[in-house]
Amino acid sequence: MSQTQRQLRLGAIIQGASGNMSAWRHPDAVADASINVDYVLDLARKAEQAKIDFLFVADGLYITPQSIPHFLNRFEPVTLLSALSLVTKNIGLVATLSTSYSEPFTVARQFASLDHLSGGRVGWNVVTSPLEGSAKNFSRASHPEHDERYRVASEYLEVAKGLWDSWEADAFVRDKASGQFFDADKLHTLNHKGKYFSVQGPLNVGRSPQGRPVVFQAGASEAGKAFAVEAADAIYTRQETPALAREFREDVRRQLVARGRRADDIRVFQGISVIIGSSEADAERRYQQTAELVTLDKALEYLGRYFEHHDFSQYDADAPFPAIGDLGENSFRSTTDAIKRNARERGLTLRQVALEEATPRPTFLGTAQQVADGLAAWFLSGAADGFVVRGGTPTAFDDFVEQVIPLLQARGIYRQQYEGATLRENLGLAEPENQFASRRQQVA
Amino acid sequence: MSQTQRQLRLGAIIQGASGNMSAWRHPDAVADASINVDYVLDLARKAEQAKIDFLFVADGLYITPQSIPHFLNRFEPVTLLSALSLVTKNIGLVATLSTSYSEPFTVARQFASLDHLSGGRVGWNVVTSPLEGSAKNFSRASHPEHDERYRVASEYLEVAKGLWDSWEADAFVRDKASGQFFDADKLHTLNHKGKYFSVQGPLNVGRSPQGRPVVFQAGASEAGKAFAVEAADAIYTRQETPALAREFREDVRRQLVARGRRADDIRVFQGISVIIGSSEADAERRYQQTAELVTLDKALEYLGRYFEHHDFSQYDADAPFPAIGDLGENSFRSTTDAIKRNARERGLTLRQVALEEATPRPTFLGTAQQVADGLAAWFLSGAADGFVVRGGTPTAFDDFVEQVIPLLQARGIYRQQYEGATLRENLGLAEPENQFASRRQQVA
Repeated sequence: MSQTQRQLRLGAIIQGASGNMSAWRHPDAVADASINVDYVLDLARKAEQAKIDFLFVADGLYITPQSIPHFLNRFEPVTLLSALSLVTKNIGLVATLSTSYSEPFTVARQFASLDHLSGGRVGWNVVTSPLEGSAKNFSRASHPEHDERYRVASEYLEVAKGLWDSWEADAFVRDKASGQFFDADKLHTLNHKGKYFSVQGPLNVGRSPQGRPVVFQAGASEAGKAFAVEAADAIYTRQETPALAREFREDVRRQLVARGRRADDIRVFQGISVIIGSSEADAERRYQQTAELVTLDKALEYLGRYFEHHDFSQYDADAPFPAIGDLGENSFRSTTDAIKRNARERGLTLRQVALEEATPRPTFLGTAQQVADGLAAWFLSGAADGFVVRGGTPTAFDDFVEQVIPLLQARGIYRQQYEGATLRENLGLAEPENQFASRRQQVA
Repeated sequence: MSQTQRQLRLGAIIQGASGNMSAWRHPDAVADASINVDYVLDLARKAEQAKIDFLFVADGLYITPQSIPHFLNRFEPVTLLSALSLVTKNIGLVATLSTSYSEPFTVARQFASLDHLSGGRVGWNVVTSPLEGSAKNFSRASHPEHDERYRVASEYLEVAKGLWDSWEADAFVRDKASGQFFDADKLHTLNHKGKYFSVQGPLNVGRSPQGRPVVFQAGASEAGKAFAVEAADAIYTRQETPALAREFREDVRRQLVARGRRADDIRVFQGISVIIGSSEADAERRYQQTAELVTLDKALEYLGRYFEHHDFSQYDADAPFPAIGDLGENSFRSTTDAIKRNARERGLTLRQVALEEATPRPTFLGTAQQVADGLAAWFLSGAADGFVVRGGTPTAFDDFVEQVIPLLQARGIYRQQYEGATLRENLGLAEPENQFASRRQQVA
């Protein structure tokens, strides 16, 4: 194994009892995992012990009684990861936060503050809110349409980056003798006036250990991808096959170069789920046991969530997937497009679609060796820079950490120790320049 | 000492190097205290060891280069107190957060999440933003005027309370066998449509350990006081003398009863500062040493902050305090009124006003015994239910914890152990009812 072997990177999802929407019913599940501090602490410690790069928390801003159990009652990501910041030492903390219903000044501030608290381990998964209903929780007359949400996100992130550059890294001299607290030349007031935001600045938090949080982007639509290529450090995506994943990653790398960034400026993470067994049959049994927890009723509710909480129980479950027109176009577009296409191409009934969606087969299923081989194959073929791992059963993540990671380490494609102090360093990303400092130095 | 002796309650301010605006220059000061994790951790642990009720963090949303050093670069309160939630066990965590530039859904969510994370130790100091400039950081054309800010705050808190009542305490049954995750009768969708906010709900966090955070209110204006009497559990205020403090507290208690609440439904905290010495002369010397760190220039800048960053350096410092008209009316109104009145009544020069404001004498100065006696006298005369303590020098809080608290304990007016698990229990406040559950039970 070579010293210069490219290293695979791993994130761990925190999202209640792992598995499908009914996994909380599993005999081994912590049923209240989504709001259980001890559960989260245990997961964080195991992940850190296994040298995983980061914890990753998804989010949502709108629920109905039909939402999946995990979404009804869960920690808010910024508070959760802040709480973990002083009880972990090395692992990154990546919080999802939507640009559709928040203020860039507040969000830039909270992430900068958390980057200070954690010693430079923060990531921000920048998303736009897919659910129409979100507008109703935020005093808005209507939900912005898909592509506009990305235009907002783009300006929002530009503002946030400007605010994070308010102070140069060495702006605070704190000279007790002279009374000089900061160097005024190293303070930069943004004065942003754009289409969606007017933000003067400066931010009331000094430059954080990473310069700014590692920016993740998680939408797979073209608008989402373009946004990532413009401004992100990492992408969280899910492709069905290694070929599609490789194509996706290569496209991102091409677009990066076309925009004047380096191909290596973005880490592409595939979101995967895993089930590990003592044999392939044992793993399959574990999958079936978890899948059987989902009833048809719940599966139809779950499906409805992607389509603006559409009520699918009104249709005959054993007839072909119903014609529902454009429903879903303005929310989870890439997901709903895929569901419709899959149903059409394979001629599936509503029951089949609903159960497939609610009880997805894990990306990797088998023995630890099979799973490790599968991950290595994807990684080495260029399908991903790393994986964000979700257990396909309540105990699968533990199995992954205990059985699969040692195999990846033995192959020389996964670290034995954290390389750096910050998430950015562990992901091998360059430290961002301060845009104002660069300009000042060019002038001088 | 009687078992039923009314107990004094204490909060500790986290706010950079303690003392005046130039305290960071003090030889004993941690100059970067406002953004130093280890400093905050140490303070939190000392406060908890001393059985202090809560940590209290102030906030602000707008800075200029003239802002005081501590404000330029500090932790954001929600992230800071979340970070402390898993490294403390008993102490309350009270974060200041403004209703003027935030969304009730997000804020209700973050506080509920933090209440879960901390096991019921959260307080929210509900403020309106005093600084005109804040609008410029939040894409707003103008800053709302003083009384309107309180009308917004009142509706905002009503929304937040409605969201915190989204789920009854026992709504989540999580019955693995039947697959029932929650009891639909115990889910309540707010559907708020008001003058300033339209918020549907429900909140995506279950009822938190305290039912809802302990609500603090910190404005001393009549609008602020009325808001507190309507909706708060605690008030943070600062009166100059025990007589004024007693008058304030009695007025609050009278107004509570007039509104149909009980006089004991609100705890009134006096914000105080302390300097402790081995003798009174030693304490005075400590005060002078810290006061001398403030230059006239810095004092004039500091004064300007209360008056919309007015430039006071343009006046003759040794002439009488200048006529500046209504300046300050729409920001820190109660403070600016007091400054103007004080200057007029005592015939002070600008220099005198500026230095008095920038180097305020501590509320209590003297030996530990003198400070303990002073606190006991205020408390026992009904001037306060407790105190939020700020050190008047960088080491004064340590002195307070080590020397004054044991004297208060010896007098039987301060706890030796925490009484309860939650902040609400420790403050002796009743658990709030769920407004929807009460209605449901009345109907049933």
